[in-house]
Amino acid sequence: MTGLTGGDSSLLRRINSAATLRALRGGAHLTVTELMDATGLSRPTVEGVVEGLLHERLVVEAEPDGPDARRRGRPARRFRFHAEAGHLLGVDIGSREVRCVLADLTGRVVARHSRPVDYVGAEERLDRTRTAIAELLRRAHIPRDRLWAAGVGTPGIVDRDGVVTFSAALPGWTGTDLGGRLARSLRCPVLVENDANLAAIGERWQGVAAGSDDVVYILAGLSPGAGSLIGGRVHRGFGGAAGEIGALHLLGRQAPPESLLSTTGTPLVPLDEEAVAEVFRLARTGDPVAKEAVDRFVQRLVHDITAMVLTLDPEIVVVGGWAAGIDDVVEPLRTELGRFCLRLPRVELSALGADGIALGALRIALDRAEQRLFPIDHEGAAYS
Amino acid sequence: MTGLTGGDSSLLRRINSAATLRALRGGAHLTVTELMDATGLSRPTVEGVVEGLLHERLVVEAEPDGPDARRRGRPARRFRFHAEAGHLLGVDIGSREVRCVLADLTGRVVARHSRPVDYVGAEERLDRTRTAIAELLRRAHIPRDRLWAAGVGTPGIVDRDGVVTFSAALPGWTGTDLGGRLARSLRCPVLVENDANLAAIGERWQGVAAGSDDVVYILAGLSPGAGSLIGGRVHRGFGGAAGEIGALHLLGRQAPPESLLSTTGTPLVPLDEEAVAEVFRLARTGDPVAKEAVDRFVQRLVHDITAMVLTLDPEIVVVGGWAAGIDDVVEPLRTELGRFCLRLPRVELSALGADGIALGALRIALDRAEQRLFPIDHEGAAYS
Repeated sequence: MTGLTGGDSSLLRRINSAATLRALRGGAHLTVTELMDATGLSRPTVEGVVEGLLHERLVVEAEPDGPDARRRGRPARRFRFHAEAGHLLGVDIGSREVRCVLADLTGRVVARHSRPVDYVGAEERLDRTRTAIAELLRRAHIPRDRLWAAGVGTPGIVDRDGVVTFSAALPGWTGTDLGGRLARSLRCPVLVENDANLAAIGERWQGVAAGSDDVVYILAGLSPGAGSLIGGRVHRGFGGAAGEIGALHLLGRQAPPESLLSTTGTPLVPLDEEAVAEVFRLARTGDPVAKEAVDRFVQRLVHDITAMVLTLDPEIVVVGGWAAGIDDVVEPLRTELGRFCLRLPRVELSALGADGIALGALRIALDRAEQRLFPIDHEGAAYS
Repeated sequence: MTGLTGGDSSLLRRINSAATLRALRGGAHLTVTELMDATGLSRPTVEGVVEGLLHERLVVEAEPDGPDARRRGRPARRFRFHAEAGHLLGVDIGSREVRCVLADLTGRVVARHSRPVDYVGAEERLDRTRTAIAELLRRAHIPRDRLWAAGVGTPGIVDRDGVVTFSAALPGWTGTDLGGRLARSLRCPVLVENDANLAAIGERWQGVAAGSDDVVYILAGLSPGAGSLIGGRVHRGFGGAAGEIGALHLLGRQAPPESLLSTTGTPLVPLDEEAVAEVFRLARTGDPVAKEAVDRFVQRLVHDITAMVLTLDPEIVVVGGWAAGIDDVVEPLRTELGRFCLRLPRVELSALGADGIALGALRIALDRAEQRLFPIDHEGAAYS
């Protein structure tokens, strides 16, 4: 009953404008008459709304096409959503590389780019991130001021302001004001989120978790992380530390992953994902020592995931992270979960692979863009 | 913008009625003039609303009291909320006893009762539950038709219809249509919920978790359960199995609690809480074998809780369950969580003890009663 502030005419205009944009956003090229059908609005209202949207460049006149258009003298004007009126960025700042995706206002990816970053410090990592973004924009011929929003994923705990309050995975990264510093160079809203949370969002958007509201995503690695969606929303926890399960393996006073995966008795270098990939590769060739190491490691990962599943009871568990070797986890995981869980979730390998985090980041940037395109839906929340 | 169905006059009447009830529900005895001040409504409106509430018996005329009342001829009529217009039941069906609390419409407990039930089958357990409730109502002189709602807690997984779809803790309990069968004898809405979830609700309502929206409650026992609140709401999981962490100890292929707590080499009888209490008692007297057994057990419980905390990142962890021995868990838990968690939650012993589950059950019954007392707030949700 509250929240109905502002003049009604302005409110109505926004409602009508959102309805019109929504009708066009699927890609259809519609005439005023078709827009009247789609929205239930009168001709003068649709004409007024379209005028406003043309002025904002959110709608453009579609080129007439097909033989019909030419034959019949002057055809009715058709309008389409101007998906290129703005662009969105999804960025994944990982331990080994920065991956970026660029999309139009429908979320369609128009360009991708990545740059290696392993073992560099925080400033260097930020620099390379900025460079990767600049290169991507240049190649795609998109000026910086066309960016509406950027989503950014990082390992570790992120606070509401986009500051990384803790990260064990990236050297010197704790304390970095990632949101503030990237917003200064990008000059658009920058939304920073934990990488595993974004991977979960990405899989729900375009991957194996489509249609699921209760998702656990395991970002497998030497220091595994996890992201979870509950009721379709990211669960960050009271202090943003939910899913930071990297310490679980220490609980049993057992060996860390670096030792578990060692084939020589000497632990691997922490965070050395190349060495890990090599162990997985050897195991697949049948090397018995590597196979035993992988078995130990998978057993541990399965244990960690089971603890999460018992706690959360998700609809689906998505396993992603390492490009190599990760498919060895899915079957043992299904078996173990079947033994210990009262209700067995679906267990699937990530469908988005190495792009998952960047796509999740893109999705939260797209959410922000939609708040601008359809403000009325978001004002609507004030009624509850 | 949707949901404004029904005549506006009826909607307004419900809004005004709710505002008036709310003003009286704190316990104040108010005159029409004071109700006008409290609600901002006009005299005729307040008079009309009070008339309706008197008719529904939700409001009664307060006895004039104090010397003033007698001195000045005919004082202004005062009205009070009729908290006894209905009653609410909270029931905890545990492995060893059924505990019931009875409250008025403000949630104030007016009577308590419990009955032992250990090792009986499902029918016998249901019978004793009905008997316990009947005895409680009889002693409190409350006729059954005065019950507005009952909340019921049980170990195990409960579906939306109040059927226990799985319970390892109570013999023959799986498949019991607890909600349906108790509703038939009580003839009021019966809301069934997992016991640990209710304990979490109870602690947030009246215990150590007051004011916290993100709560993990550990119901310690031979087969520990856990309940969690996320954003102030129970997290049940996709299939209602969230928090069923009883299987966690099996993951490490280690001994079950019955063996961990054994002081003789022979495992304790599963679910034999008396024997458990005895081991804890012995440990406190300094018995070295018992002390070692308790240490092993606490270590395991702490491990399970830490897995949950890393997954959920709650604001507070409440430990309850066993009356005896459970305080030995809190200190080791704080220490261990300090070692493994990126963000340390508060760790507290349950403040409600053995009543916690019944009080949580009462709280959900009270929620249901409030939907009836203040329907307008709940319709309000339709605006979002």
